[in-house]
Amino acid sequence: MTASFRGVIPPVVIARHEDRTLDSASYERNLSRLIDAGVDGLFILGSSGEGAFCTASERQTIIDRTLSVVDGRLPVLVGCIDTQTQRVIEHVQQAEAAGADAVVVTAPFYALGGPAQVEEHFRLIAAATTLPVFAYDIPVCVHTKLDNDMLVRLGKEGVLAGVKDSSGDDVGFRLLIQANEEAGHPLTLLTGHEVVVDGAYLAGADGCVPGLGNVDPEGYVRQWKAAETGDWQWVKKEQDRLAKLMRVAMLATSISGFGAGVGGFKAALKLLGVFDSAQMPQPVAQLRPDEVDAVKATLIDAGLL
Amino acid sequence: MTASFRGVIPPVVIARHEDRTLDSASYERNLSRLIDAGVDGLFILGSSGEGAFCTASERQTIIDRTLSVVDGRLPVLVGCIDTQTQRVIEHVQQAEAAGADAVVVTAPFYALGGPAQVEEHFRLIAAATTLPVFAYDIPVCVHTKLDNDMLVRLGKEGVLAGVKDSSGDDVGFRLLIQANEEAGHPLTLLTGHEVVVDGAYLAGADGCVPGLGNVDPEGYVRQWKAAETGDWQWVKKEQDRLAKLMRVAMLATSISGFGAGVGGFKAALKLLGVFDSAQMPQPVAQLRPDEVDAVKATLIDAGLL
Amino acid sequence: MTASFRGVIPPVVIARHEDRTLDSASYERNLSRLIDAGVDGLFILGSSGEGAFCTASERQTIIDRTLSVVDGRLPVLVGCIDTQTQRVIEHVQQAEAAGADAVVVTAPFYALGGPAQVEEHFRLIAAATTLPVFAYDIPVCVHTKLDNDMLVRLGKEGVLAGVKDSSGDDVGFRLLIQANEEAGHPLTLLTGHEVVVDGAYLAGADGCVPGLGNVDPEGYVRQWKAAETGDWQWVKKEQDRLAKLMRVAMLATSISGFGAGVGGFKAALKLLGVFDSAQMPQPVAQLRPDEVDAVKATLIDAGLL
Amino acid sequence: MTASFRGVIPPVVIARHEDRTLDSASYERNLSRLIDAGVDGLFILGSSGEGAFCTASERQTIIDRTLSVVDGRLPVLVGCIDTQTQRVIEHVQQAEAAGADAVVVTAPFYALGGPAQVEEHFRLIAAATTLPVFAYDIPVCVHTKLDNDMLVRLGKEGVLAGVKDSSGDDVGFRLLIQANEEAGHPLTLLTGHEVVVDGAYLAGADGCVPGLGNVDPEGYVRQWKAAETGDWQWVKKEQDRLAKLMRVAMLATSISGFGAGVGGFKAALKLLGVFDSAQMPQPVAQLRPDEVDAVKATLIDAGLL
Repeated sequence: MTASFRGVIPPVVIARHEDRTLDSASYERNLSRLIDAGVDGLFILGSSGEGAFCTASERQTIIDRTLSVVDGRLPVLVGCIDTQTQRVIEHVQQAEAAGADAVVVTAPFYALGGPAQVEEHFRLIAAATTLPVFAYDIPVCVHTKLDNDMLVRLGKEGVLAGVKDSSGDDVGFRLLIQANEEAGHPLTLLTGHEVVVDGAYLAGADGCVPGLGNVDPEGYVRQWKAAETGDWQWVKKEQDRLAKLMRVAMLATSISGFGAGVGGFKAALKLLGVFDSAQMPQPVAQLRPDEVDAVKATLIDAGLL
Repeated sequence: MTASFRGVIPPVVIARHEDRTLDSASYERNLSRLIDAGVDGLFILGSSGEGAFCTASERQTIIDRTLSVVDGRLPVLVGCIDTQTQRVIEHVQQAEAAGADAVVVTAPFYALGGPAQVEEHFRLIAAATTLPVFAYDIPVCVHTKLDNDMLVRLGKEGVLAGVKDSSGDDVGFRLLIQANEEAGHPLTLLTGHEVVVDGAYLAGADGCVPGLGNVDPEGYVRQWKAAETGDWQWVKKEQDRLAKLMRVAMLATSISGFGAGVGGFKAALKLLGVFDSAQMPQPVAQLRPDEVDAVKATLIDAGLL
Repeated sequence: MTASFRGVIPPVVIARHEDRTLDSASYERNLSRLIDAGVDGLFILGSSGEGAFCTASERQTIIDRTLSVVDGRLPVLVGCIDTQTQRVIEHVQQAEAAGADAVVVTAPFYALGGPAQVEEHFRLIAAATTLPVFAYDIPVCVHTKLDNDMLVRLGKEGVLAGVKDSSGDDVGFRLLIQANEEAGHPLTLLTGHEVVVDGAYLAGADGCVPGLGNVDPEGYVRQWKAAETGDWQWVKKEQDRLAKLMRVAMLATSISGFGAGVGGFKAALKLLGVFDSAQMPQPVAQLRPDEVDAVKATLIDAGLL
Repeated sequence: MTASFRGVIPPVVIARHEDRTLDSASYERNLSRLIDAGVDGLFILGSSGEGAFCTASERQTIIDRTLSVVDGRLPVLVGCIDTQTQRVIEHVQQAEAAGADAVVVTAPFYALGGPAQVEEHFRLIAAATTLPVFAYDIPVCVHTKLDNDMLVRLGKEGVLAGVKDSSGDDVGFRLLIQANEEAGHPLTLLTGHEVVVDGAYLAGADGCVPGLGNVDPEGYVRQWKAAETGDWQWVKKEQDRLAKLMRVAMLATSISGFGAGVGGFKAALKLLGVFDSAQMPQPVAQLRPDEVDAVKATLIDAGLL
């Protein structure tokens, strides 16, 4: 079953009008563009997809519009990110009711944590849904690193279907791939680090969730196909090019973290004519004009503009 | 106006039945007990008050029951803790509509932060309400330390009415008290560290928000009265006693953080006959029986049982 | 025996010529000034005293010059800060051979740590000397927080004579004071946080190790005397004044951490005519001229210039 | 010139007798074994090589014995790890006087840091020696992450010859490789993460510094040769095998960090008959007997025993 979540699964970036309300037309243009590029799935309402930042009504709109546009053509994974178990379960059940194909869940956060609580959290969530549950390992946001032994154990028990790794810990991810292999590959393992996908594929990752895939989905699709045929020189060559393109998400100095990264992707999508605006959720500002110029120069260098 | 938020303002702990649903009867017994003890205000839906963990419907119930029981006898501050500005504003407007006296707001979290964004966050929230806004400085949960210069600046501008300090940074809090004094005391400054309230009062704090005040509200009320009269020996004596009692929140080893602390308060409240259950929100377990025995011994030592 | 380490024990700042070599004349002027002000002891080669930064030959010079100037008039505690046990023991034996009265030792660092190793570290060091050993709790530098239970246990066993607390954790320090009291006060407990000494005294600290004491030793001596007589209003009043003066160590923006703090103290000592230069060890720059002007203004405000 | 530091350069583990004194015979057996396996260089007195933990006299002995055994057959890089610039320079000059081929230097630590200071630190050190200087990026120990822009700038200026990356930040390392390439490859870039060398080679790393290379130097030599010929399937296959073998450094639970990792390597070297003892520097204990049994089982699984 989890085999259906292999390959390139971009975390879809949200489009907003200048007044910060959702811009469904721009958003759907991006969805169609990603599907046309041949991606293998879509991950909505993750960290890049503002799943932790949008309001309840925005959340419902995004789920509904996505599933309507996709219309079963490829699997849709829905981020269900919240501080506490019951709150996550409400999101999971919303996603399931709407027709999602899988949910992606972080460790609890704010003041919750501890190994026993984290494991119980995943168990309770999986018990509350029939959908496959992916664990989302993102310590930079939730300040808990998921334990490899727990992940593989929950994989073998059927509690977890996979892991989206945004841990920044490539050594740990390599050891997780190895332990998962020894256990018979119960988990589908996806890397969220778009700059080092080549190494993750060489190590045995089942796919990637690249934020930069919003900007250049074709590149990641070509890279995945090359990896499937073992053409590592090609995998590396695409990565070198994409690593340069990643500059769009790293050049802002007026803002940091999510604002710089997702702000850079949105600026690129506006320059590419996909988005009408690069607007961000409050309290985050858009990139400054000089930073947008630098994004433009990067896109031109990459031959995308 | 902010003078009305001085003194002892306990963060009210939530009561749950064994099945984890809200237990209004137990909760209201505790409210009445706190009011009878002479506390100066109540802080609901903070970190100890599960404001970051309860569901939307639980949130509405807690606000409504509290305001109904209190019935204007003392000010009620409502925690509005969420990752992002617009989500916080929805909570603030809910609190205002229900009749709250003030709101308490953290920095944004999960992936948001940065000085300019944090300041914008507070400005946007204050602009969306007529209620006094307290900044809640709790880096252990939101991973941003609020900057003293920003706090005093927003105080002088009327954006912020006060600060609830749970920063664990007593040097910083001392310097904030000093800067606030030099600016004409625009901010009401409350310490959330129940073990060192004596030092905070000596330094010039305007009051405290002690989780342990759920267990021994009379002690904190006596201490505040002693501080108001400059009887520092008495202030210290109460603190020494309360610091020993704080063991109820620090003795659990089966669980950590919020679970150990608030779990210990709930175990004490059950032993004191105030709560019917010491149940916690998922995925957190209650203290083990041997830990509850240690809480009981601590209460007996303190003469509370 | 440990009673002799009570009171005000400044961490003595090192004087350097502009060429960065030691300036013994300036250093000895400061020593004499501190002794004349009535301090109760001297702590050399701590963090402020460049114990972790000076070369082996500088270290020997500083120990020798200090003990010669002091000549038994008050106790000298020598910081023995190093990554690993045997290296610390070499420093301890050097201090003992020179005639020091006590040594002050951090947890091991760089890649060492873990509760069992930290405890073994202190045990091995105490076994290698007849001098009283103070534990130096400074997690910001060594990235290990010393455990209260371990400290009190080692106090009761006679392994440790006291603790110099620079942990920034006032709650933990309060609980340490309480546990030490319950154990019969085996440890002499000194706070290293010069801005909140009043609260520490109220809580029961045995003294302080204030870097700012290099700038205004008389203030800390008056404050200690007031604390000894229970005149808390005076204790607080001195602290309010000293907290303002602490601005000398917090105003630099051209440099951070040690450079800003100790750099500010040195700038003040030069302005006060005690030091010929405010030079720092490589690779640290002195405060910029505009920052020195701000230090000067602070000294004038405080009536010290 | 820097081309001579490409390939496999193991960080040589120190041998100690049970009484914790240096065991030169065991140490030299390991040196000879590494050289016979065909490694391209040796890195002594790094983190694994106890450079931050040994005493001054041990340090001299290790340098002298190594250079004597190696006798110019391959380059020797000497770790010069210390808190402060002048202290590092003393180590660098000792290494240069003894005939080392390069030095490897971390950012300053304990209380030093800040971008300007870190850059000045490297500049002052390079100015004090004719040897090539490698920057050692190891934030887990020194709590400063080296900045890519600074590294490439210092490479272009001839201040730095290369970087040994133990940052745990594979995204950052990939971007460093890319920036170094765009600058004309002034820096030799070596990864210190023995579990993900395959990905680092695919990304363009110039070599590796694998602690596990003490246990299986032949594996890393074969892997490097495969990388040089572009046989990525072989590179990956060796890595999968070596990642399993890495269990020797990760299975201890009685001890953490350096103790578990280097302790595991030493236990393996003793089981392999290379070391007479697996003794560690104080205050670190050796692995427990059951942990040594698990190391043995891992070596047998890997066909090394």
